[in-house]
Amino acid sequence: MSTLTLEQLNTLPLAEAAERLDGLYEHSPWIVETALQQRPFVSLAAFKYRMVQVVAAAGREPQLALLRAHPELAGKAMVDNSLTAESSNEQSKAGLTHCTPAEFDKIQRLNAEYNARFGFPFILAVRGPRGTGLSKAEIIATLERRVQGHPDFELAECLRNVHRIAEIRLNDKFGYTPTQGHQVWDWQEALAQHTDAGYVGTGQLTVTYLTDAHLACARQIQADMLAAGCDSATIDAVGNVVGRYESDSYPRTSDERQSPISSKTLLTGSHYDTVRNGGKYDGRLGIYVPLACVQALKAEGKRLPYALEVVAFAEEEGQRYKATFLGSGALTGDFDPAWLDQTDADGISMRDAMAKAGLDVNAIGAIRRNPADYQGFVEVHIEQGPVLNALDIPLGVVTSINASVRYVGEITGMASHAGTTPMGQRRDAAAAVAELILLVEHCAAQDGDSVGTVGQLQVPNGSINVVPGRCTFSLDLRAPSDAQRDALEAKILTGLRLICERRGLHHSLTRTMQASAAPSASAWQQRWEAAVTALGVPLHRMPSGAGHDAMKLHTILPQAMLFVRGLNSGISHNPLESTTSDDMQLAVDAFRHLLHQLAHAA
Amino acid sequence: MSTLTLEQLNTLPLAEAAERLDGLYEHSPWIVETALQQRPFVSLAAFKYRMVQVVAAAGREPQLALLRAHPELAGKAMVDNSLTAESSNEQSKAGLTHCTPAEFDKIQRLNAEYNARFGFPFILAVRGPRGTGLSKAEIIATLERRVQGHPDFELAECLRNVHRIAEIRLNDKFGYTPTQGHQVWDWQEALAQHTDAGYVGTGQLTVTYLTDAHLACARQIQADMLAAGCDSATIDAVGNVVGRYESDSYPRTSDERQSPISSKTLLTGSHYDTVRNGGKYDGRLGIYVPLACVQALKAEGKRLPYALEVVAFAEEEGQRYKATFLGSGALTGDFDPAWLDQTDADGISMRDAMAKAGLDVNAIGAIRRNPADYQGFVEVHIEQGPVLNALDIPLGVVTSINASVRYVGEITGMASHAGTTPMGQRRDAAAAVAELILLVEHCAAQDGDSVGTVGQLQVPNGSINVVPGRCTFSLDLRAPSDAQRDALEAKILTGLRLICERRGLHHSLTRTMQASAAPSASAWQQRWEAAVTALGVPLHRMPSGAGHDAMKLHTILPQAMLFVRGLNSGISHNPLESTTSDDMQLAVDAFRHLLHQLAHAA
Repeated sequence: MSTLTLEQLNTLPLAEAAERLDGLYEHSPWIVETALQQRPFVSLAAFKYRMVQVVAAAGREPQLALLRAHPELAGKAMVDNSLTAESSNEQSKAGLTHCTPAEFDKIQRLNAEYNARFGFPFILAVRGPRGTGLSKAEIIATLERRVQGHPDFELAECLRNVHRIAEIRLNDKFGYTPTQGHQVWDWQEALAQHTDAGYVGTGQLTVTYLTDAHLACARQIQADMLAAGCDSATIDAVGNVVGRYESDSYPRTSDERQSPISSKTLLTGSHYDTVRNGGKYDGRLGIYVPLACVQALKAEGKRLPYALEVVAFAEEEGQRYKATFLGSGALTGDFDPAWLDQTDADGISMRDAMAKAGLDVNAIGAIRRNPADYQGFVEVHIEQGPVLNALDIPLGVVTSINASVRYVGEITGMASHAGTTPMGQRRDAAAAVAELILLVEHCAAQDGDSVGTVGQLQVPNGSINVVPGRCTFSLDLRAPSDAQRDALEAKILTGLRLICERRGLHHSLTRTMQASAAPSASAWQQRWEAAVTALGVPLHRMPSGAGHDAMKLHTILPQAMLFVRGLNSGISHNPLESTTSDDMQLAVDAFRHLLHQLAHAA
Repeated sequence: MSTLTLEQLNTLPLAEAAERLDGLYEHSPWIVETALQQRPFVSLAAFKYRMVQVVAAAGREPQLALLRAHPELAGKAMVDNSLTAESSNEQSKAGLTHCTPAEFDKIQRLNAEYNARFGFPFILAVRGPRGTGLSKAEIIATLERRVQGHPDFELAECLRNVHRIAEIRLNDKFGYTPTQGHQVWDWQEALAQHTDAGYVGTGQLTVTYLTDAHLACARQIQADMLAAGCDSATIDAVGNVVGRYESDSYPRTSDERQSPISSKTLLTGSHYDTVRNGGKYDGRLGIYVPLACVQALKAEGKRLPYALEVVAFAEEEGQRYKATFLGSGALTGDFDPAWLDQTDADGISMRDAMAKAGLDVNAIGAIRRNPADYQGFVEVHIEQGPVLNALDIPLGVVTSINASVRYVGEITGMASHAGTTPMGQRRDAAAAVAELILLVEHCAAQDGDSVGTVGQLQVPNGSINVVPGRCTFSLDLRAPSDAQRDALEAKILTGLRLICERRGLHHSLTRTMQASAAPSASAWQQRWEAAVTALGVPLHRMPSGAGHDAMKLHTILPQAMLFVRGLNSGISHNPLESTTSDDMQLAVDAFRHLLHQLAHAA
């Protein structure tokens, strides 16, 4: 059958359109039929989201029926050859038709366990985030992980996989390939081959500042930039890789650079270092999405009326040295020379590491950007959170990078015998921290878009039969504005004081970090919103709970960020961090839209 | 002035009696005057407790006035020679009149800090628990510790010290010396000179099973038993030291041993091993209090109509090997031969340790006691809890050794980014444990005489910016009866399940211990009650939250325990564990009373 077009989807008689889309949702044509009633759709993205909404609105029983309409992976239907054509194709692509008996047995056993536990079959989009098929090992590992999941989560996760399966099937029917999304995927996959010495062969990705793997990443990014069509790609004095795609009128004289805003350079980028055992997309997505746009512009022989500068920041995670945001900080003049004398876990100073990497410490000052040369800063980043995943929305527009404050604290009471100290005579430090944890949870939940976390918690040398005399903890509070954070902080610190007074305990608190909010520049946020809306993607505004390089650039330039949905509940700083090439394609499309908006404004 | 007698106290005109007691409470004659209105008193103990009640009933303002009537230690009054005669004597005995300038400065500074913080002077009975004077170093260490205390606690602790000062002054006025209490104190002090190899010279007391220090303790106890007047003192096959004071009719034929209950042997004792860095009284008090009675009987040339067998149990704490209650267990036939193959931290098996100590493993079976040979088992023990200290009552009668159950557990949720995971989408394992901690606290507090403790608590590898995905904890529940414990346990386990269900978390629990309650035998508990009452000590019945050797003997004999007040909030398993020779004297008196009750019944 010939491929379908969006025009056909919108204009064919409904029954015929539905017929052409048969099989999108396994044995469940009602989803397509209901969704089509809302024609026309501006994009495939808009149609997909409509189908998501149809399933969400149907309620629990039809959702369970939808799940149960799916065959088991490598299950009886596969063995009997009674799979739908689509399922057969997918299971075959994942190599499931060629399982060893041991693999087959294991999958069968896990499937049975999963089904017994949750009442529906384990569903996984086995063609995976790039659409090319997961390995059998990946499938088995996912089954083993998810059979441990929570029922509510598994229901939602199965539905998300059903939608992902439909997305891939829809692409097939439309003969659509997210080419640039695949390209971004492949660039990141290739870059992830470099990992620090201790992690080689472990399958774990760790790239910390100025290690061999880090320097290899810089060289590879430089090569990718040049290959994509950047006019220049240089490694600066702190290891940032700076690619430039010059404007339609370059080279300019210095006089010409005093031109209207729209002809100034647009700055973008993100970091390429990682945490230990981190993900492949954190930071790097914000380098390669713009690069895909450069590649397309170059291929089309197009220039913009302004230069595009893509910076791959050398350091953001603060893993090897305590110098978080070193890369972007160098651009804003925030490189602290004291950092040079810090040593890593092996006693190597940053100064020596830079010298060994051939970086010129004396040139760091010159990296500082003059804000007058730039229009603003935009950054694309994987969400690193579960929000977009839970909403089934591929892109999110960031309203603000949250203000934050962190403490480490300790409550001291009186250690005493767990058997002989009556409840009314205890000074239990852990019980007080327990109250604090629930207070933090309650206050943050009441405080729109704020979050509060006690992530570290310990009764030092605790014994099963001793009432805790000490309990240590950490406190991390974040809110969309400084004022909101301050109010939340005051509420919780007051609560802590009252808890300790009531219980007759001491407490100490040390503030270890405080960062101001970085609200998005309104005009720039609106550009992202216009881009997302134009793509037919539902607009979702959200704060960023994590810090990003944009926070640094915020101090000298207007900035706004775009988030891309993460799979697996948006897990980050973890090998399970992932997103699809379809979503990355949408990010490329949105970035290209923003570039055009600026060009038209120019 | 000549010493006072109890008869004079009871019969002198009130004003004259008050006059003779002038100075008992510093500048506060109202306490004595009010207390005397309740004459007659059956004992000094009864009079002291009456004064405690007068102060307790007076309320906060008179209490503060009482504290403020006291001079500062080594303070201006001492320098000016304006102390009362009593204070001058006491401060001089503690060597405070001979402070170095540095000591004097330090005490002055701490005094000022204490007074500024609490609004009353630091008060300490500087003549100490034996009445002979604390060292300057002890006084300074106590000041440094207590200046960190909680205001409510410090008020109560100062009042307790005021009563202790009054007790010592009262003893002086009556020319009364708690001679046997001093003897018990001195025995324990001497025994505490033996400490395990790694603790020599640290000031820390650690005596674990069959170490050199442990064997030295056994030999010393054996010598003490013989010196006190025991007819025999032998070290048995597990290292218990067994002293016997035979009856008035010994030796008996085996036929004669089939005699009425009252001529059977009375078994008593406690353990001489300690925890690491433990206290001097835990266990040992229950060896030396009966021994003081033997010593008195011997000195008086008296025999009882039954034999008294005092056993110093070699092992109760389970520190070197996991074989808690080994000593008393050997008497009840609960010595587990599998223990012999256990190894300590240095890889030494119990079998080898016993061989090295000259103990005959093959003779262990023969240690088992035939219940038909014994009337019952009584045990004196330091309370190891804060109850008697808080009530200002020197002795407590144990109603039951609490049933207990212990678990270690883990809650697993989903680790996620603390900044990016909205409050409503978290699976925070620590927040669930926080709920559990407060549930345990609440349920135990509602459940008379039960206690519940989460003593171990940790977010493994927790990070300040990660929502806890795991949290480990322990759970220790104790109640006066098995049924009460089971009900409490069921309530808390149900609560835990509901918490985890509501939050979408998993939990696992492993029961590591369960012990049945050992309620006191009613006739034997009544003997302790009669003894305590006869001494004029207020009767306070209480469960034992800690396990004791009596728990083991409970399986073969009727048993009942007597508790002795501990200072410093009853802290135990700690070098601060302490009691006074006055309280130990009362324990000796009570034990003697119990011996007489049995003799008269015979």
